Amino acid sequence: MAVVPFRWRSGTLEVLDQRRLPHTIRWIACRTPRQVADTIRVMAVRGAPAIGCVAAFGMALASRPSSNGQSLPMLESAGKMLKAARPTAVNLAWGVDRMMDKAKQFYHSRESGNPSGWAPASAGATMPSMLLAEAKAIASEDVANNRAMGRHGARLLRKRSIILTHCNAGALATAGHGTALGVIREAFDQGKVAHVFVDETRPWFQGARLTAWELSLAKIPHEIITDSMAAHMMKTEKISTVIVGCDRVAANGDTANKIGTYGLAVLAKHHGVPFYVAMPTSSLDRGLKTGAGIPIENRSSDEVVRVGGVRLAPHDTTARHPAFDVTPASLITAIITEKGVARPPFVDSLQRLS
Amino acid sequence: MAVVPFRWRSGTLEVLDQRRLPHTIRWIACRTPRQVADTIRVMAVRGAPAIGCVAAFGMALASRPSSNGQSLPMLESAGKMLKAARPTAVNLAWGVDRMMDKAKQFYHSRESGNPSGWAPASAGATMPSMLLAEAKAIASEDVANNRAMGRHGARLLRKRSIILTHCNAGALATAGHGTALGVIREAFDQGKVAHVFVDETRPWFQGARLTAWELSLAKIPHEIITDSMAAHMMKTEKISTVIVGCDRVAANGDTANKIGTYGLAVLAKHHGVPFYVAMPTSSLDRGLKTGAGIPIENRSSDEVVRVGGVRLAPHDTTARHPAFDVTPASLITAIITEKGVARPPFVDSLQRLS
Repeated sequence: MAVVPFRWRSGTLEVLDQRRLPHTIRWIACRTPRQVADTIRVMAVRGAPAIGCVAAFGMALASRPSSNGQSLPMLESAGKMLKAARPTAVNLAWGVDRMMDKAKQFYHSRESGNPSGWAPASAGATMPSMLLAEAKAIASEDVANNRAMGRHGARLLRKRSIILTHCNAGALATAGHGTALGVIREAFDQGKVAHVFVDETRPWFQGARLTAWELSLAKIPHEIITDSMAAHMMKTEKISTVIVGCDRVAANGDTANKIGTYGLAVLAKHHGVPFYVAMPTSSLDRGLKTGAGIPIENRSSDEVVRVGGVRLAPHDTTARHPAFDVTPASLITAIITEKGVARPPFVDSLQRLS
Repeated sequence: MAVVPFRWRSGTLEVLDQRRLPHTIRWIACRTPRQVADTIRVMAVRGAPAIGCVAAFGMALASRPSSNGQSLPMLESAGKMLKAARPTAVNLAWGVDRMMDKAKQFYHSRESGNPSGWAPASAGATMPSMLLAEAKAIASEDVANNRAMGRHGARLLRKRSIILTHCNAGALATAGHGTALGVIREAFDQGKVAHVFVDETRPWFQGARLTAWELSLAKIPHEIITDSMAAHMMKTEKISTVIVGCDRVAANGDTANKIGTYGLAVLAKHHGVPFYVAMPTSSLDRGLKTGAGIPIENRSSDEVVRVGGVRLAPHDTTARHPAFDVTPASLITAIITEKGVARPPFVDSLQRLS
């Protein structure tokens, strides 16, 4: 069974509600960009590449006559709303910007012959059909990139690897296959993976619920650990590799990813364990010199102090909830991309990739 | 409101069921050593000093005619059962052994005049009354030790300290006042504590449920974080001190404590944050050269993959559940005891304490 976090069905973007996985499969139908933004904000869909893709479909929906996105300013406004849904992953902006570029290109190419810009230039070529095709291209490129990343990354792993991963950087976090999990899939197919330890990843349990489910479906041997067990496992279980995904990487290699990643990287360094980041180049923010400029989303206290609707903490106690942290490049062994593996100094190697 | 994890009422040991805190107050009545062992095993009562104390009361209950503990071998057997309830904290063995010593002393002092050993030697002095008095002494010494530990430890803290603690080493983990939390209480009374960050402490949430409750009752400003946020907080929030309790400390200072402690110590070292262990000398295992000899309890997978009775993970996925880890002495800045503060090398300083 192949897992996908979204699908296009008869003019509707259907988003798999990941908050209910793995025990309930429920698709949320989105017909407007606002509905798409909502699925991103509430984390029905999450994972940097996946939210980049659904935002692209959100732009395609915005361009339909029924969504009032029938001018570039109206599309810009839909894009702004989609970008604001979550601040940290740069893929969201990347997906929206790529769609805007396509829209502008289409608009300007029509300008001379067709001032409105929206009427078909040739049979079938409308703005909505162009943008839908572009969104679909973004999604299928994402899967192809993940497969390439898997091949590059698998080369870094030795036989009988015991891998530790955090959060979910799998099919559910992308258009399919996964980034960090794509590397694990490929390495497993090559007979290199002995075992995967999965950080449960508080507070949303993406590891326990999503990564474990994907590994289970792929029949890759794995066990869940609490995030707090990682150090003990590195000491006692001969973890050979840590691989994680990312939400935004600065030009120098500083990497924002799910809260807990930075701590893992420190622990990996202490134990001499290689620490790899799997990054589609759509997650690279070339305009940002260092990780200090990455906006870290703060989410609600309730998402920490309540589990399954039940409040654990005393009524007058609140929690902090930074959803991401920044791992400095100095703690990263290599960054695996669809174009190859970047090694330190990343400021050079990441630039060479483009 | 003063929190206590157990109380003696009309011939019964009442144990506060900490699994339901802070929202439900429920006392479990124990009239036999087996009932006491059960409350320890299921973690209705937890915390090394607290389980040492309730085990001592368990021995007192065992010596009553109704419990069949009317010979030294029978008492030995009750002690063995109590010690087996949980393996890691040495206080359990310490409490039982101290009670056995008292029983033997009483028995032998009676031997000449009273071969049965159990009849009163003088008015009111029976084995059960002697052992009950001893259990009560252990509990009240524990509170006094915690207060002394608090005074020694508070001296280590600077003004406006921002403290990070893990699990619960408070009143609920002891006979009252707390070890690590006793230090925080005392430092707060001295005006030295600006804020406390509390690791929620998966999988049992002792931080979110118990420590937060104690801090809330004591009106000490605090916030909960997930265990995975500790590194980010050390980097961004100027954590000045980490203080934790312990379950067993080897002669060289290697310290077993709640899973996650070792990782925290590595992170503290990386960030240059002092890492303190609060240890009543009843947690010191002088017979053990290093932490390698400390038995680490493995608990059930279900305690990780289920939260509030609801399974999070896929049905065919299991979790690891080491309940403790060992922090090497090299990562510990100082060990705070009721007799003073031990500094490295601990192999000397801990010995000097006795």
